[in-house]
Amino acid sequence: MPQQIHHHTFDNGLTLLAERMDHVRSASLNFLVPAGCVYDPENEIGLASVLSEMITRGAGDRDSRALSLALDNLGVDRDESVGQLHQRFWGATLASNIPAALEIYADILRRPRLPKEELDPVRALALQDLQALEDDHKAMVMVELRRRHWPLPLGRDRRGTPATLKRITPASVRKHYERSFGPRGMIVSVAGKIDWPALRDQVERLFGDWQGAGAPELKLKKAINGRGHVEKETAQTQIAIAYPSVPFGHPDYYAAQGAVQVLSGGMGSRLFTEVREKRNLCYAVWASYQTFKDRACVLAYAGTTNDRAQQTLDVTLVELKRLAEGVTDEEVERVRAGLKSSVIMQEESTSARAGALASDWYYLGRVRPIEEIQAAIDGLSAAQIVAYVKKNPPRDMTVVTLGPAALKSKAE
Amino acid sequence: MPQQIHHHTFDNGLTLLAERMDHVRSASLNFLVPAGCVYDPENEIGLASVLSEMITRGAGDRDSRALSLALDNLGVDRDESVGQLHQRFWGATLASNIPAALEIYADILRRPRLPKEELDPVRALALQDLQALEDDHKAMVMVELRRRHWPLPLGRDRRGTPATLKRITPASVRKHYERSFGPRGMIVSVAGKIDWPALRDQVERLFGDWQGAGAPELKLKKAINGRGHVEKETAQTQIAIAYPSVPFGHPDYYAAQGAVQVLSGGMGSRLFTEVREKRNLCYAVWASYQTFKDRACVLAYAGTTNDRAQQTLDVTLVELKRLAEGVTDEEVERVRAGLKSSVIMQEESTSARAGALASDWYYLGRVRPIEEIQAAIDGLSAAQIVAYVKKNPPRDMTVVTLGPAALKSKAE
Repeated sequence: MPQQIHHHTFDNGLTLLAERMDHVRSASLNFLVPAGCVYDPENEIGLASVLSEMITRGAGDRDSRALSLALDNLGVDRDESVGQLHQRFWGATLASNIPAALEIYADILRRPRLPKEELDPVRALALQDLQALEDDHKAMVMVELRRRHWPLPLGRDRRGTPATLKRITPASVRKHYERSFGPRGMIVSVAGKIDWPALRDQVERLFGDWQGAGAPELKLKKAINGRGHVEKETAQTQIAIAYPSVPFGHPDYYAAQGAVQVLSGGMGSRLFTEVREKRNLCYAVWASYQTFKDRACVLAYAGTTNDRAQQTLDVTLVELKRLAEGVTDEEVERVRAGLKSSVIMQEESTSARAGALASDWYYLGRVRPIEEIQAAIDGLSAAQIVAYVKKNPPRDMTVVTLGPAALKSKAE
Repeated sequence: MPQQIHHHTFDNGLTLLAERMDHVRSASLNFLVPAGCVYDPENEIGLASVLSEMITRGAGDRDSRALSLALDNLGVDRDESVGQLHQRFWGATLASNIPAALEIYADILRRPRLPKEELDPVRALALQDLQALEDDHKAMVMVELRRRHWPLPLGRDRRGTPATLKRITPASVRKHYERSFGPRGMIVSVAGKIDWPALRDQVERLFGDWQGAGAPELKLKKAINGRGHVEKETAQTQIAIAYPSVPFGHPDYYAAQGAVQVLSGGMGSRLFTEVREKRNLCYAVWASYQTFKDRACVLAYAGTTNDRAQQTLDVTLVELKRLAEGVTDEEVERVRAGLKSSVIMQEESTSARAGALASDWYYLGRVRPIEEIQAAIDGLSAAQIVAYVKKNPPRDMTVVTLGPAALKSKAE
């Protein structure tokens, strides 16, 4: 059964993407709004997070409670999140309930009440979220890594600080909503048992007359990079490393993915084998890939006991650098098998597909057919991966540790 | 399309369950082995966890690395976990790779090498896992809650202690494997694009001649219950509460689920509304249901700042007790919608179905058809839920807090 992918970009700049999946009864929907935390004013960082919580506290004819109940009554499993560049609104339910859910989301996105009296409660939750970070060392080391690795405001933490949260007013929430929510650059994606003509007509009716500008251009500062340490009396030391890679859509993108998989895809991968299995240095060690439109990075993480932390950092850095010395055909075969299997599994999930539609469109301006992804995976070779690593070796690194003592950086 | 569920119990006591899902290309497999941490000898707690890690370090003709690579080469996404009563081995990949994966799992389960030289590395990892708990306060409060709420050894933590881990020897790992791994009581379940006759024949060939006893009977001590506090200088206070419910399979089971959903299903649920939205006491608050064959509990959790902890505990306890005063039809409608939507979504996931097959069989000795579950959800009423809560009110509670200061227990 070939994929049935549809898309339409309305005159006001909003893009609708859909994938019909015949053999499911559910559907997932995904709104990607270019209103992430990088657009927060410098003195009110945390505003996007506050807005994302405020926006669900009443919209259109419904107050906060009525809105929650209306979505609950449709069986919508849902989530809102704030990233660097986007706010994401995600929901999944029976396909037959999607049209009713879309009506409610149109209220949320276009007619939020943003009630004044909810600001203090929402701010209190935002402060709690910030305080919880103090006890979550893994999240905290990543916050510090992002802050050092990406040029600000790209590396900013969406939670803000007590001082920036305190400055937020009902008026600034309303102003930020009006400035950052609009059809231009917004992507709506739906995957599951949907009826495309009816879906397109409904989205046109709900969003077609919306007007508004897109996200402003970002001015980036210079990245800090280098070495950071967060001193904290903990039982474990957290280690996080980042260095540049090629962005999604770059001709070397699949080779970059292949390199990360050699390091960290499956239990036979290099980091798992060398750091965890052979030297039993730590329980958790992995590498992953993160991308923006114009820049990307390899991210590596290890959490270990304080007395093994130095060795863990050293061995991890050695493994990252050793990639350029060569990759075996056996490793590439393993990587291909893992990637192919994960593509097939994503293809069966409405939620994964709704996310992939939006993400492909945002980065590439088109949706990659599954066959294209499979062909790229089949075509991966050791030579290609090594060539990529030689062009993009682990350098300009950012290394952040969190624990009672800083580590030496001899191997960098 | 009606469900296509198959089962066969072999003469040696092993049960094979399968669900054919025509429209997927993947399949998930699940081995449930009655060898959980409750069967660890008193002076070697942690043995099941050590065994679960050792068992994948070489089996049959393959050493540790060859075993990892063989599964990676089949694209098997996999996981091993140790629960109170079972060890679980889970894998998912292309359906066409399932037969080859089964051959490897037969080696792992029946012919593990349990190499002596791997014990020290595995023990070092187990110690790291134990130490990581020190920094993971949410996990730690749950460990202490289980220890107090369930009669030992049911409430035991699988991680053991440094002293019990130290006592484990290569001989005790081997002995524990021989004592606790066998076909009796073992459940193998597979869901996805499978061929039942071929699957049954293969499992018979791989496991049919295996002999062995089942898990020994458990002798339970008296539960501790009551009130516990773990003193720790943290920014947040963790609160965990447990009290008895009816086990899975009990005539009131669906009413019990309904009650938990009134408390915690969806954003319009009582705990979310009263604790988080109205009083903004905490970011995370939820209730869930946990079951053994002969006993079960409602579990509630909240994580909050230290200064709001007392009020959070008080309000949460009030909400738990208030259930008996009545449930509205509107709430039940909301609960039904949420449960129905989640049943449909689980029905579309090979991994969820493989898990559900095994779980239904273990608790009920049969697999519930989706129609039966849907009919039970449709039949849920406010009267039924309130009757359940009156029969099973929040009493004999266990309450555990973790933070700098203990809380008062006036509302209990």
